[in-house]
Amino acid sequence: MRFDEAYSGNVFIGANPQLEQAQTVIYGIPMDWTVSFRPGSRFGPKRVREASLVLEEFSPYLSRDLSEFNYFDAGDIPLPFGNPEKSVHEIGAFVDQVLQKKKMPLGIGGEHLVTWPIVREVHKHYKQLAVIHLDAHADLRTDYEGEILSHATPLRKIAQLLGPENVYQFGIRSGTKEEFEYAREHIHFYPYEVLRPLKEVLPSLKGRPVYVTVDIDVLDPAFAPGTGTPEPGGIHSGELLEAIHAIARSEVEVVGADLVEVAPAYDPTEQTAVVAAKVIREMLLGFSR
Amino acid sequence: MRFDEAYSGNVFIGANPQLEQAQTVIYGIPMDWTVSFRPGSRFGPKRVREASLVLEEFSPYLSRDLSEFNYFDAGDIPLPFGNPEKSVHEIGAFVDQVLQKKKMPLGIGGEHLVTWPIVREVHKHYKQLAVIHLDAHADLRTDYEGEILSHATPLRKIAQLLGPENVYQFGIRSGTKEEFEYAREHIHFYPYEVLRPLKEVLPSLKGRPVYVTVDIDVLDPAFAPGTGTPEPGGIHSGELLEAIHAIARSEVEVVGADLVEVAPAYDPTEQTAVVAAKVIREMLLGFSR
Amino acid sequence: MRFDEAYSGNVFIGANPQLEQAQTVIYGIPMDWTVSFRPGSRFGPKRVREASLVLEEFSPYLSRDLSEFNYFDAGDIPLPFGNPEKSVHEIGAFVDQVLQKKKMPLGIGGEHLVTWPIVREVHKHYKQLAVIHLDAHADLRTDYEGEILSHATPLRKIAQLLGPENVYQFGIRSGTKEEFEYAREHIHFYPYEVLRPLKEVLPSLKGRPVYVTVDIDVLDPAFAPGTGTPEPGGIHSGELLEAIHAIARSEVEVVGADLVEVAPAYDPTEQTAVVAAKVIREMLLGFSR
Amino acid sequence: MRFDEAYSGNVFIGANPQLEQAQTVIYGIPMDWTVSFRPGSRFGPKRVREASLVLEEFSPYLSRDLSEFNYFDAGDIPLPFGNPEKSVHEIGAFVDQVLQKKKMPLGIGGEHLVTWPIVREVHKHYKQLAVIHLDAHADLRTDYEGEILSHATPLRKIAQLLGPENVYQFGIRSGTKEEFEYAREHIHFYPYEVLRPLKEVLPSLKGRPVYVTVDIDVLDPAFAPGTGTPEPGGIHSGELLEAIHAIARSEVEVVGADLVEVAPAYDPTEQTAVVAAKVIREMLLGFSR
Amino acid sequence: MRFDEAYSGNVFIGANPQLEQAQTVIYGIPMDWTVSFRPGSRFGPKRVREASLVLEEFSPYLSRDLSEFNYFDAGDIPLPFGNPEKSVHEIGAFVDQVLQKKKMPLGIGGEHLVTWPIVREVHKHYKQLAVIHLDAHADLRTDYEGEILSHATPLRKIAQLLGPENVYQFGIRSGTKEEFEYAREHIHFYPYEVLRPLKEVLPSLKGRPVYVTVDIDVLDPAFAPGTGTPEPGGIHSGELLEAIHAIARSEVEVVGADLVEVAPAYDPTEQTAVVAAKVIREMLLGFSR
Amino acid sequence: MRFDEAYSGNVFIGANPQLEQAQTVIYGIPMDWTVSFRPGSRFGPKRVREASLVLEEFSPYLSRDLSEFNYFDAGDIPLPFGNPEKSVHEIGAFVDQVLQKKKMPLGIGGEHLVTWPIVREVHKHYKQLAVIHLDAHADLRTDYEGEILSHATPLRKIAQLLGPENVYQFGIRSGTKEEFEYAREHIHFYPYEVLRPLKEVLPSLKGRPVYVTVDIDVLDPAFAPGTGTPEPGGIHSGELLEAIHAIARSEVEVVGADLVEVAPAYDPTEQTAVVAAKVIREMLLGFSR
Repeated sequence: MRFDEAYSGNVFIGANPQLEQAQTVIYGIPMDWTVSFRPGSRFGPKRVREASLVLEEFSPYLSRDLSEFNYFDAGDIPLPFGNPEKSVHEIGAFVDQVLQKKKMPLGIGGEHLVTWPIVREVHKHYKQLAVIHLDAHADLRTDYEGEILSHATPLRKIAQLLGPENVYQFGIRSGTKEEFEYAREHIHFYPYEVLRPLKEVLPSLKGRPVYVTVDIDVLDPAFAPGTGTPEPGGIHSGELLEAIHAIARSEVEVVGADLVEVAPAYDPTEQTAVVAAKVIREMLLGFSR
Repeated sequence: MRFDEAYSGNVFIGANPQLEQAQTVIYGIPMDWTVSFRPGSRFGPKRVREASLVLEEFSPYLSRDLSEFNYFDAGDIPLPFGNPEKSVHEIGAFVDQVLQKKKMPLGIGGEHLVTWPIVREVHKHYKQLAVIHLDAHADLRTDYEGEILSHATPLRKIAQLLGPENVYQFGIRSGTKEEFEYAREHIHFYPYEVLRPLKEVLPSLKGRPVYVTVDIDVLDPAFAPGTGTPEPGGIHSGELLEAIHAIARSEVEVVGADLVEVAPAYDPTEQTAVVAAKVIREMLLGFSR
Repeated sequence: MRFDEAYSGNVFIGANPQLEQAQTVIYGIPMDWTVSFRPGSRFGPKRVREASLVLEEFSPYLSRDLSEFNYFDAGDIPLPFGNPEKSVHEIGAFVDQVLQKKKMPLGIGGEHLVTWPIVREVHKHYKQLAVIHLDAHADLRTDYEGEILSHATPLRKIAQLLGPENVYQFGIRSGTKEEFEYAREHIHFYPYEVLRPLKEVLPSLKGRPVYVTVDIDVLDPAFAPGTGTPEPGGIHSGELLEAIHAIARSEVEVVGADLVEVAPAYDPTEQTAVVAAKVIREMLLGFSR
Repeated sequence: MRFDEAYSGNVFIGANPQLEQAQTVIYGIPMDWTVSFRPGSRFGPKRVREASLVLEEFSPYLSRDLSEFNYFDAGDIPLPFGNPEKSVHEIGAFVDQVLQKKKMPLGIGGEHLVTWPIVREVHKHYKQLAVIHLDAHADLRTDYEGEILSHATPLRKIAQLLGPENVYQFGIRSGTKEEFEYAREHIHFYPYEVLRPLKEVLPSLKGRPVYVTVDIDVLDPAFAPGTGTPEPGGIHSGELLEAIHAIARSEVEVVGADLVEVAPAYDPTEQTAVVAAKVIREMLLGFSR
Repeated sequence: MRFDEAYSGNVFIGANPQLEQAQTVIYGIPMDWTVSFRPGSRFGPKRVREASLVLEEFSPYLSRDLSEFNYFDAGDIPLPFGNPEKSVHEIGAFVDQVLQKKKMPLGIGGEHLVTWPIVREVHKHYKQLAVIHLDAHADLRTDYEGEILSHATPLRKIAQLLGPENVYQFGIRSGTKEEFEYAREHIHFYPYEVLRPLKEVLPSLKGRPVYVTVDIDVLDPAFAPGTGTPEPGGIHSGELLEAIHAIARSEVEVVGADLVEVAPAYDPTEQTAVVAAKVIREMLLGFSR
Repeated sequence: MRFDEAYSGNVFIGANPQLEQAQTVIYGIPMDWTVSFRPGSRFGPKRVREASLVLEEFSPYLSRDLSEFNYFDAGDIPLPFGNPEKSVHEIGAFVDQVLQKKKMPLGIGGEHLVTWPIVREVHKHYKQLAVIHLDAHADLRTDYEGEILSHATPLRKIAQLLGPENVYQFGIRSGTKEEFEYAREHIHFYPYEVLRPLKEVLPSLKGRPVYVTVDIDVLDPAFAPGTGTPEPGGIHSGELLEAIHAIARSEVEVVGADLVEVAPAYDPTEQTAVVAAKVIREMLLGFSR
């Protein structure tokens, strides 16, 4: 009887059932309460895990295989519906425990606000932290319709915590006039493009601890229609994969990562969940030490 | 040039462009922040209006025509994303103005929590108010995961305000043990069925001001799949229409009504929006004085 | 090599490849140019044929098997896009040839206007013709926005041709005030219900040639969401099947039939195409002599 | 850190993480290789578990709560793709272990062929076994296109093993002429209907060990479109729930059960998964001892 | 009470409620009667407006904000279903009034035939008019199955009116042999590509009044699946946006524009409506004076 | 009466009803029994034919028109459900007959295993055969979960039959470590890319008989979501079309071709069927002699 392997079909492909040996902890963050246009990313983590089964465990890009790595899938963090404050607290508490066990947190969202409490915890452990942010939206507002805890504000809060000079944004193609002005003045800002400027920037981050946050909508909606705020004019899935590979091959030290904003209700073909799963596989293989 | 009729395609079928003569005000309540399972009812009002165009203006059931009535479609109330407290306040303020103009409010949700601030305002104007509630879920919790303002609590709050003896529930087939015990002890509670007990109850409400709230999930998911918390074993669309007609033909005085929980993301055939539009047409024709 | 059977998968289940021995001719009428709400029934015939493959060739209701009958599937009539006048002419010409070969025409629509030219031809061959019409909509307008050839007018034109006393409508639950008044005064009109009044009426039609036209929207949208003008409050698929069986077991002489308004773009589950295919199978088995 | 509860979101609602105390074992059977029309039920078990989260743990019908019961969700049995023989063997081996631990197996399919190896094992432990079968299709063929192990044959094989007089079929509305003749002559056969004949039959099974197998397509496609071979004219979800309750309240001893043929690719609204989850909840609450 | 802002959610994002100050008039043209393959673009304008809400009002490409411009959304022109002749007349009459008020018409289709009456009116006001046409299809037929007013003919009629030397086509990758021969001989014809030849051509149009018509199917179906006649091998959304920007930055005088052929029934992810809305935002910001 | 043209709407666009004069035979191979992730490609051939109607018969890329060619659409090969061995035999027998009639077989899948029996037959007639394989997956396993006849093995079997030096793979981006090692050592292997290496390789194949097999998943899922194992990071539809054109213009002798793995259940927009149909049109025009 295979009761011990019973849940094997419900975790990310190739996950190890034992936490202790794992170097990396995958976890879902099923929160979407502050999404203004199309909610539903609370179901993103489950569908990304399910979609991961279409993939091979071997990455020909990196010539590595998931079987060579040890990682644990912790399931979804239980979060209080509709309460951003408490949710942000719970996420932070979870990530803190992962970091105290000296494991790398690899989160699957959920809306982008979740990156704020994650980075706040990571920053406690890595004071020189820099953030690499791939997204269609700047997420640099001070508030959204008066709310400070919003899917539109996390990078602004992160910039305030780390210093804007430690934030690197790529692929941005949407925001308010104020966000673009702030971005151009204060942070490392590379709108529209991803791979070319990323390759230029990476050498300057050599040896630094880096947190990587990817909003799936950095892809054009053709490649990732299942997301809350699709923004046409984005990059192709091949470019996003190459960007992950460029970071993996660079000399930065990735200390945490996430991929957010997969919304299954707008993904009837499952293509968004599949591309998200592939990006996470490459993160697992490329970022794990 | 028809600029004056320009918006005619974007309002509920047959709506009158002038507010002042209108007896009834249709309004959308695009809120779904406290929905725990499948969000998206924030888009419900728009799609119900669009779907209303498939209908005739004439109801053969009631032998009345929308052209004989005067009603205004006020569009959607602007609500602050993700903030139940402020949203509840905004909804109440809107409904208060409608009532002060001596017009009947007819709301399209949005999640069911919206009924709480509406009824609170209506109750200020009609002290003998009774509530007729058609739903799959009792919505009688004192809180949901600690939150008092939740899609699972509005009827409990209403029962506390009006006295539980003024709440009549029909069609309920889901809830916690505590909700069912509370319902059986304190309110007028007719689970599973709608039409038969409703017809029995209506004479006892003769002459009373009544607020009617319909959660579209009182229908079986076969008839209304596009909703946040589908619950199999529900009634058919024919029975729901007959229930509206029974109220319309009774001697109660309907002073307000709503239909909530239409979630377009789970309604690829638009059938949920269409049945919701038909129920609203019958409410307009049957409840307007 | 099975080149001779090559198309077997593209015709209605069990169709005979030879026209000459066939008693019945199935044909598609891919027209939807006058549909006002949701077009797309031009693809109905193809998807109904495809869906027929889910069915058995045996009907336990009638204890008959398609293998005992000889019928031919003539494919779709080629029609000029967007031109109702010419289309109506082409349909009539096709049906005329079927009738001249002494075969029963069994059409798959396409919008309901197609029934007008069909019945006009059938009437030339059967002067005592009566029409049994199952539908949600009365289709009794004299014109629709000024157009006489419209999906909203065919039964009025038929009533004028045959005399309204030869038209029997069942299940109607939508129309203008004028249509309902006309129907109640002039034709045999049984709104909302189908099976009960049909069983009462059939004996009076004993020995008469009868044309049966079924709009799939006589079903509630729960049973047939994939249609142009869904109208909630309809009958169940079981009742529609029983209605066909009642006609088949009666002593009327069915001389032609059609099933119309299947719109695949609103049928992601294919359930509308499947129920349409089953109704056609029962018509084939029950109406063929 | 909640790593111990980590998988709570990926099992059937309310499942107990410990096998040993469980009375009932839920397991998925992700097989669909012999499905002839629309495959995809291999994904059924996962989506039914996910959909179970929309439900309450309390059943007002039975006045029982999942928290009062102890059951384990064993995940999906790993099966060799495309190999019916080996799959049948694996399923049997799994069920044997569940039975040896004196637990009740409650399976989620997957195609209906899976019931054959399950019943074969159950029969080894309960020699007086009777089978109650709710389905649209008789599944009584001796073979399907020459294959003995097919989704069209399991009940025939079961009838041969147990004796046809121990097989009770309800709701059947599709099959070949031969299947209907065999059914009418040899087994207890109640086509088209479910609840009425079931209530009549149950007293005669008093005290007998009974296996209950439900094909979700016993429901009309309006209630369960997401299935491989939809067959219009079926029962409503309310009737299916009542049937489960009737068995639960009878004096038969249910020793195992399954629900099969949920195909998510044809279930864009998730309504089929939801009704399946509710039926399984009622089975858990009603059949567990 | 916000009744004066009531319709704000039903118009294109940022639209001004007053016509008189507006420089540009957005209007919907809900016509699809001559579409031969997949109809449904009659619902395009409504869904494009709804999708516009996902966008910011600021364009980082053009460094302009909708709040700096004054434009009015006139809603959809009421058109007679199924009647191309009358529809063409109504469209022309509407555009004439817009032009007489010295405002720029910006249309949302609807099928491509609508461009014919629009350009005919624009030409009356701007005799030196040139047309820039971005499309997958040449639309240069003299007739389509005998019909002159067809979605396949508008550019031919425009070429006859303006002189073919005033027509510039980009991105064409489908047509008959005759259309390609005509195009290569008579008009400025740049098949397959858009941005490169457009940038070459624009200087030669300096100072000329230009009408810009974009068929959304110039995009590859990956970027715009929701259209009537998808044609693989098209350009990416980034290239289309750049093309609009190139025109905006050139020295031509854009005197009108449209975007046509968005068909929501084939757009379950809404990605086509979103990219159409973004193109219209860029047209508004880039073409308005 | 057009009974002789009756099936014209159910075959690939422009197909000739007479087999004998045809140079090319199109045939469907409705098999998907060994697909491990998402089955359903058994319906691929029918939907590709239906989608072909959106296309023109003229290819501007090749300046050829289907009317200049003679080809026959043989429909789908009848295959025994769930039986790979017999299916492989039937496919081989069919192709043998096509080849004996000196016609080129052009197959539409169905899963990729079908290419194995096809190439085996083609190889009997063309001993110098080379295979050009465009795919996301190497399909080079010796077995899949113990099964030799699997969708994951056909190219390995082909390499063993023809000699690996006669196999040319392009676009591969997924496989096991073993497959990539085998590919790099033994066959002509060009991962990730298609057009550039293909153009380099073609001159070396001058005069050779070549079989071309295209798995639609060589395209990125953005361009072909409706497939069994979508793999992000693929090529664009424009590149695939150019690859077909490059082969057509080269001096190889194409003696057979197929396009496989179109799965309509995951293709709600029909975009996958449409791009498949266009590739087949270009194969017909470019490969036919």
